[in-house]
Amino acid sequence: MAIRFLTAGESHGQMLGGIIEGLPFGYELDFDFINSQLAQRQEGAGRGARMKIETDKIKIISGVRFSKTIASPLMFTIENFDFKNWVFPMSVEKIEITPEIAEKIKEKEIINLRPAHADLAGVLKYDIDDVRNVLERSSARETASRVAIGAICQCILNNYGIKFQSEVLQIGECKNKKDFNDYIKKYRLEGDSLGGIIKVTVKNPPVGLGSYIHWDKRLDGLLAQALMSVPAVKSVEIGLGKKYSELSGFNSHDEIFYDKVNKKYYHKTNNSGGIEGGMSNGEDIILTLAMKPIPTMKKALKSVEYKTHKPVKAHFERADNCAVEACGVVAKNMCATVILNAFLDKFGSDNKTDIDNAYNTYLARLNER
Amino acid sequence: MAIRFLTAGESHGQMLGGIIEGLPFGYELDFDFINSQLAQRQEGAGRGARMKIETDKIKIISGVRFSKTIASPLMFTIENFDFKNWVFPMSVEKIEITPEIAEKIKEKEIINLRPAHADLAGVLKYDIDDVRNVLERSSARETASRVAIGAICQCILNNYGIKFQSEVLQIGECKNKKDFNDYIKKYRLEGDSLGGIIKVTVKNPPVGLGSYIHWDKRLDGLLAQALMSVPAVKSVEIGLGKKYSELSGFNSHDEIFYDKVNKKYYHKTNNSGGIEGGMSNGEDIILTLAMKPIPTMKKALKSVEYKTHKPVKAHFERADNCAVEACGVVAKNMCATVILNAFLDKFGSDNKTDIDNAYNTYLARLNER
Amino acid sequence: MAIRFLTAGESHGQMLGGIIEGLPFGYELDFDFINSQLAQRQEGAGRGARMKIETDKIKIISGVRFSKTIASPLMFTIENFDFKNWVFPMSVEKIEITPEIAEKIKEKEIINLRPAHADLAGVLKYDIDDVRNVLERSSARETASRVAIGAICQCILNNYGIKFQSEVLQIGECKNKKDFNDYIKKYRLEGDSLGGIIKVTVKNPPVGLGSYIHWDKRLDGLLAQALMSVPAVKSVEIGLGKKYSELSGFNSHDEIFYDKVNKKYYHKTNNSGGIEGGMSNGEDIILTLAMKPIPTMKKALKSVEYKTHKPVKAHFERADNCAVEACGVVAKNMCATVILNAFLDKFGSDNKTDIDNAYNTYLARLNER
Amino acid sequence: MAIRFLTAGESHGQMLGGIIEGLPFGYELDFDFINSQLAQRQEGAGRGARMKIETDKIKIISGVRFSKTIASPLMFTIENFDFKNWVFPMSVEKIEITPEIAEKIKEKEIINLRPAHADLAGVLKYDIDDVRNVLERSSARETASRVAIGAICQCILNNYGIKFQSEVLQIGECKNKKDFNDYIKKYRLEGDSLGGIIKVTVKNPPVGLGSYIHWDKRLDGLLAQALMSVPAVKSVEIGLGKKYSELSGFNSHDEIFYDKVNKKYYHKTNNSGGIEGGMSNGEDIILTLAMKPIPTMKKALKSVEYKTHKPVKAHFERADNCAVEACGVVAKNMCATVILNAFLDKFGSDNKTDIDNAYNTYLARLNER
Repeated sequence: MAIRFLTAGESHGQMLGGIIEGLPFGYELDFDFINSQLAQRQEGAGRGARMKIETDKIKIISGVRFSKTIASPLMFTIENFDFKNWVFPMSVEKIEITPEIAEKIKEKEIINLRPAHADLAGVLKYDIDDVRNVLERSSARETASRVAIGAICQCILNNYGIKFQSEVLQIGECKNKKDFNDYIKKYRLEGDSLGGIIKVTVKNPPVGLGSYIHWDKRLDGLLAQALMSVPAVKSVEIGLGKKYSELSGFNSHDEIFYDKVNKKYYHKTNNSGGIEGGMSNGEDIILTLAMKPIPTMKKALKSVEYKTHKPVKAHFERADNCAVEACGVVAKNMCATVILNAFLDKFGSDNKTDIDNAYNTYLARLNER
Repeated sequence: MAIRFLTAGESHGQMLGGIIEGLPFGYELDFDFINSQLAQRQEGAGRGARMKIETDKIKIISGVRFSKTIASPLMFTIENFDFKNWVFPMSVEKIEITPEIAEKIKEKEIINLRPAHADLAGVLKYDIDDVRNVLERSSARETASRVAIGAICQCILNNYGIKFQSEVLQIGECKNKKDFNDYIKKYRLEGDSLGGIIKVTVKNPPVGLGSYIHWDKRLDGLLAQALMSVPAVKSVEIGLGKKYSELSGFNSHDEIFYDKVNKKYYHKTNNSGGIEGGMSNGEDIILTLAMKPIPTMKKALKSVEYKTHKPVKAHFERADNCAVEACGVVAKNMCATVILNAFLDKFGSDNKTDIDNAYNTYLARLNER
Repeated sequence: MAIRFLTAGESHGQMLGGIIEGLPFGYELDFDFINSQLAQRQEGAGRGARMKIETDKIKIISGVRFSKTIASPLMFTIENFDFKNWVFPMSVEKIEITPEIAEKIKEKEIINLRPAHADLAGVLKYDIDDVRNVLERSSARETASRVAIGAICQCILNNYGIKFQSEVLQIGECKNKKDFNDYIKKYRLEGDSLGGIIKVTVKNPPVGLGSYIHWDKRLDGLLAQALMSVPAVKSVEIGLGKKYSELSGFNSHDEIFYDKVNKKYYHKTNNSGGIEGGMSNGEDIILTLAMKPIPTMKKALKSVEYKTHKPVKAHFERADNCAVEACGVVAKNMCATVILNAFLDKFGSDNKTDIDNAYNTYLARLNER
Repeated sequence: MAIRFLTAGESHGQMLGGIIEGLPFGYELDFDFINSQLAQRQEGAGRGARMKIETDKIKIISGVRFSKTIASPLMFTIENFDFKNWVFPMSVEKIEITPEIAEKIKEKEIINLRPAHADLAGVLKYDIDDVRNVLERSSARETASRVAIGAICQCILNNYGIKFQSEVLQIGECKNKKDFNDYIKKYRLEGDSLGGIIKVTVKNPPVGLGSYIHWDKRLDGLLAQALMSVPAVKSVEIGLGKKYSELSGFNSHDEIFYDKVNKKYYHKTNNSGGIEGGMSNGEDIILTLAMKPIPTMKKALKSVEYKTHKPVKAHFERADNCAVEACGVVAKNMCATVILNAFLDKFGSDNKTDIDNAYNTYLARLNER
């Protein structure tokens, strides 16, 4: 793996952040583009009040000089603008507990386990008393850091014509984009939530990213992990995906052709979704994912209190009732991290001069094969 | 990651093999069970002639004494019984080329690119002339090593009541198990191939495997990678999977209950497929995967010759026309590697005595929460 | 590896920082202790002016609540107080270049390659024009982040009586601690610099950290990497170290004894430095390292300008002339990261409750062997 | 890391072996060279009877065709010719225990803990009863696998003029090579053992391997780990090593020069041992290591029996009394694995065609800087 990255931050902590290690020297980063990806993650029908509080902006602390990467680790933060209301309950330091502060802290304590969240498994695994200690990190707010990282990867890959797109295909049972808003609103009024289906496309990847040589180098597996790791995603498909299983081989596989002038080796169809033998095959990479409905709802589910075991209605904290668009934004940016890794593994990872050379020489070599 | 493993071997080489590093001390391995998993991989309707040639048996070379693990790396081989017919074309050594040998080698050379395989991307990426050099490693024969490794992992996990099952739900459009054989036969007679849908179940995992703390520790992502890395798998779903996207939150999420006497915290439904917040939640883990049809068919697809670019019919070498059952066997064993890793990360990885203690103390602690 | 960490930051950037992932839940962090380690790194005879500018303080951003770890990634920063003088030359953003700003930037550009630094190899490897882009990250200032991380690891290990010490044994040829100051001063007045010899001790590690099972799990190798990676360290010894090579086996190896009442298995000597077979053997771990003299000196060495190849005297920027004590502080804290990793690999890594149990049960088991 | 490898095998098991994953396509392997490295490991004054039993030969099973790498994992074995005498005591399978077999097994059981070995820590860590289970894997016999792997790496690096040498500088207190044999013999007759000092040289590495960017990418740290992980090595030095600490900066650091015609940037001295800022600087890499005396001696040390705690003389099994030359062979081959990794990280890792291009273009670029 050429790049490594760690994300950090709690949902109501002071800030989110991350470090990416392994970025090559000499690539221009487009800060507006990065912030536009962060903004995209906050948009879409169905978002709750919080999205109006926060307007995520990346603040880069290291690894970049005059807007270009200098090969050293890129550290960034994204401020949580709501933190001012959480200073005491989320204090990093041990604090003196006045009665007033004690009340503020108490108010934010949670012992009510939310179904379909990390809450139950989290408190048991880590031996945690206050469910908030799980909630704060398992919150999807963390994905803002991932979007920032993916957007940085996109800035590098854009130099080679590689682009990332996401598109919402379906919200609940609604497949008509024009109706998404009303459909979501109807459920919100009922205190209910929705998931949906998203298509992610990687445009213009070179042939030969990933490898069939060892199972954990396969690009399909790496992309599947990246996408299934996005909170609430429960299904990942590549190309025809599940539908492949219903077709015969003769009726589904992409035949190979050769165009002497332009495309060289190519396919007329792309049922494989651009990945064969665990490698990019030169076509666009097509991924479809399904997001489950947001588990936090006003129309609360049954649950129990931790340790008292008292039956309760699930805890409800400010929440979206649909975040499918946001999920797509996270997903495409997670793909960008996987693609950049495979790209740098293939073309070297030191600096733009040498990578440009390796990339261009490779394409030239392919033209002769 | 507590365990690491590497697989090796070409489809027509002398043998397959693998090394697993990180197995704890003191676990009994059931060699018959491991071989039964290897046999399962070779069975099922739709398998070609090769499955009659080979009867895979594991030969363990190191890491085991008197049938128990001794903590040192476990190396094993699985002989390719067909190798006697491939001695010259697959020779590891440089050999003196008599006209007779030259002919044997020539006969096995391939310049015809098979669609839906690693062939095209493989020869371009690695600058390979003879497509056989791709085919030999990208062949699904490699999965025999993965099954052996997964079966070894199962032997350890069985001590804690954790079991792995796979079940074919659908072959092509056929959902009736009794009809699978005839359905597959019909396609074979046409020279066509089929894929299908498989359900994999992990029975009885403890709560708290995997973590929400960092994206790459999430059990859902790790399982998705392991399954999508199985050749021909194009879709992975967890629990309700894609169907989740069509239901509302109130109608889909698993409520939490508490049973004082037996189960303690539990769910009455398992739509989540046993994973919430990237962790096992104590219910069975349910995974569904879709396999594309086998790409090598008598009823050949259009392709081109490598380097000459001449249009041809795709190369056909001895092949199954359906391998969905085998795919399920590989899939459940890949799951076993992921679960063992998460298990040892949680309970320590040195020896059975200490792991038993950590496991039992954990369960006892959970009973008090 | 139970914990992963990344450090970030340039020497004259806005701040340094880091993220540690994998810290268990429930450990109290002693902020004063962490800051005292940072302060120690800045002390010692021979430090230059910069140490008076900066008084490093850790600012923890995430992963800690009410001073206890909550298992989520711990992100921290350490401000560079001198940054106000470097706002333009180290700007992350592309900036509008007024003549005044251009001058400030120009002033900080470097084309003069400093011998014994990363400069030459760095500019060639990364195709860098301004040597500052190498210098800023290769500067030993980065080790402040490592000290912070190691100090956090120490806070956890202190719960099990494990302590880390460093001691300067020699400065240049001077072995008398009382004379260190004068000795260093003498060289400073000559514009020359010094290195020295440091002893690092890990007190009270449990037996069985690390493993002989695979070369990259050996504790001696991992400690050697951690120490040799500290800037300017050119020699690492364990126990008797190099002197071992001059003694016969009979005259050097530590015999094994058993004390029924207290120590159980023990050694009367510790020539092995607490590590046998790549594992801690229950005795204190003793490491000796040698630091080369600081390469930046007023009494400048010959060098050349990058790209013009013009012979020059090496660039001199504000520098210490001796930093051996600081080096020891970095070294012991790097050891703490290695020991914590081995400790958590052995005893689990989720939370204090379960780790305490695993640790105590292990010690109890050992008493019976 | 471009390549990964695992070694396997017990000292008296059926065979040793290993798998290397990540070797690029298209490199010729010189089997005679690999075997010559294995032979070198078995030579040298002071080796015991075993070295006459075994004549190690590599048997490559996969990843190579007609003596060239094909990018797939290279699996190999090295037979233990002595295994015929160990069939029952080292049986992988559970066996029926006849009285005769029981006796053979009993005869090989060990409860006597050898000082300065992995024995004590090993049995405690892994909760092992029969010390043989530690001894078999912690034995230096395992290093034959490492030598095979390193020799394969050398075959690839030789294409770029990079060579690896080891040289014994000292045996015990004896610095005169002509006297080594007699010196060792004298100690052998006394039942005592010896260590020594070894110099390892990497000839002709390109500038820029490794990196100052992150501590765990530094070539000095990686080499130190690789060398300190060789059994019995207790000291690793780079360049001047420990002696650096006694010299002043002005008197020790390597000045930089430029030769327009041939060498371009170069140094007239090489005190740094070819590594500055954690990177190769274009000069030869010089490493010095110290090996402790072999701990198994006829002139036995005091020890105790495991579990009975009875004072005993340490167990003596057939052993060398000096293995310094062998240690050097292992050491240089471990270096080769580190250097190949850094080389492939820098120049890509797919195939010889593309790597040659990247390497040559890099050198050409450097000539212009």
